[in-house]
Amino acid sequence: MTTPLGPGPEFDRIRRIWGRLGKRVAGAGDDCAIVEMGGTRMALSMDVSVERVHFNLGWMSPAEIGYRAAAAALSDLAAVAAIPKGILVGLGVSGEWPEEHVAELMDGAGNAAQSVGAVVWGGDLVQSDRVIVDVAVVGEFDGAPVLRGGATAGDGLWVTGALGGPKAALDAWMNGREPEASARDRFVRPVPRAAEARWLRDRGAKAMIDLSDGLAADAGHVAAASGVQCMLDADRVPRHAAARELMDALVSGEEYELFVAMPESFGEVQAVEFVQQFGAGLTRIGSAREGRGVVVERKGKPIRMSGEFRHF
Amino acid sequence: MTTPLGPGPEFDRIRRIWGRLGKRVAGAGDDCAIVEMGGTRMALSMDVSVERVHFNLGWMSPAEIGYRAAAAALSDLAAVAAIPKGILVGLGVSGEWPEEHVAELMDGAGNAAQSVGAVVWGGDLVQSDRVIVDVAVVGEFDGAPVLRGGATAGDGLWVTGALGGPKAALDAWMNGREPEASARDRFVRPVPRAAEARWLRDRGAKAMIDLSDGLAADAGHVAAASGVQCMLDADRVPRHAAARELMDALVSGEEYELFVAMPESFGEVQAVEFVQQFGAGLTRIGSAREGRGVVVERKGKPIRMSGEFRHF
Repeated sequence: MTTPLGPGPEFDRIRRIWGRLGKRVAGAGDDCAIVEMGGTRMALSMDVSVERVHFNLGWMSPAEIGYRAAAAALSDLAAVAAIPKGILVGLGVSGEWPEEHVAELMDGAGNAAQSVGAVVWGGDLVQSDRVIVDVAVVGEFDGAPVLRGGATAGDGLWVTGALGGPKAALDAWMNGREPEASARDRFVRPVPRAAEARWLRDRGAKAMIDLSDGLAADAGHVAAASGVQCMLDADRVPRHAAARELMDALVSGEEYELFVAMPESFGEVQAVEFVQQFGAGLTRIGSAREGRGVVVERKGKPIRMSGEFRHF
Repeated sequence: MTTPLGPGPEFDRIRRIWGRLGKRVAGAGDDCAIVEMGGTRMALSMDVSVERVHFNLGWMSPAEIGYRAAAAALSDLAAVAAIPKGILVGLGVSGEWPEEHVAELMDGAGNAAQSVGAVVWGGDLVQSDRVIVDVAVVGEFDGAPVLRGGATAGDGLWVTGALGGPKAALDAWMNGREPEASARDRFVRPVPRAAEARWLRDRGAKAMIDLSDGLAADAGHVAAASGVQCMLDADRVPRHAAARELMDALVSGEEYELFVAMPESFGEVQAVEFVQQFGAGLTRIGSAREGRGVVVERKGKPIRMSGEFRHF
């Protein structure tokens, strides 16, 4: 673990565990491990999804479960501006699950891979009374990786897309309601911003992360890794139509949008080009400055963040 | 899925599922996916272990669970004569699991990686009420991969080590007894035969597989992939001291020894060199010939194989 993580008990735990591995661990600590093999620089990551921890079977079809799990893992490659190449899918399902469902789930994972130009290289299929989907992803680079630790004071802080949809969907499900279609879609079909990330890298992106823990928490990881303070203007954070409160957009996790520190010279003109090219928004929501941690301001005054995103 | 698998309902299921992925799947079907990236040829594989399916918590320490899971996955790299480079470890544990146990488990996985010259590149840590250990492994090549499909009639069929220990350990645990130490050790500390596999490759190995489903079943995969019949002489199969019956050595799974087809010219002189170099046995147990499937003979007469190895 070479890159400091932001604060929080979960991150403390991971930090201590990686710390014990000492010399046997290499490359970990960012969104991906970045390693050299035979002269090729690769990015690798793994994402485990467990039924009743990350999703419920009643919420999504098998194809959607597979799509979402693979897209979430592929988003880690996007976060370092890697080109997704292949995935391995480890699948645990009960012996009573119809084979058709297993095939649909793999189909969904294959579609997510295909959406960013990657393929399924293999995997494993085992018995488990809870559905488990574990996706390992491998990418390569056509330029420098963008890590969490490169932001410096003065950088503009930007975010892709609009935030809060996944939280709105989760809140609905947790309260026994069916989510709005657009919020549900953000949860079940996250878009790995792979091409977008490389576009941003080519325009000088200095630090980047994909939003899996929520904007406030993930900005904290960038702040910790870069040794800066991330000042976020809450009023500028683009909110998904289904997000009821501002705070929802700040803490909604599993967004898989990009939070990126761009040089000050990067401005609205380039942001418009981004929107034209990718159809997704790119919004400046703050600045990096001297200091540490994350400060969220509203109308120029810091607000208290209550709670962080946690898995339900 | 390019390589035919041997018979059996589990393999039928995997075959159908991979078949649906069509063009989105590449490289799968052998012990590893073998892919090219940026001019580097890599081997990748993934192995999922689930509590109460593949192991019980009462049988092994957390460090042993981690060691075994990683060694089993690394054995897939050995099976194609790849050089293990790195692993990703996805871990699911209950929130009540002591952090110390999590760290010990990762420690065990790191030790297994180190035993074959690999390192831990990263992973994921999630909540799960059953312990899940998912290990993805990546290797590279210093020569040609050895696949399952290269055996031809006339080849000698050889096996490393002695078989039946893991089954003896499982049988004891399943009957509420503590296994003999040597059998237990074979279950909890399997040895990925990585260096051994490359030694065999350099001496002409034509087809190879690691014994995860059991000798009879895995010989079936080689027979199916190579389009030959594997004739095995049951009396020559090296039996672990704890294996009570001959049949135990034929069906014991999760051995992680190598089953390999060598050219007829490879003989006892070379086998002695192998033993001197690696301390493990290398025993000729049969021959490949025209035909299909696996025939197990005893005193020159075919015997019926009753049952295959299954997870308990």
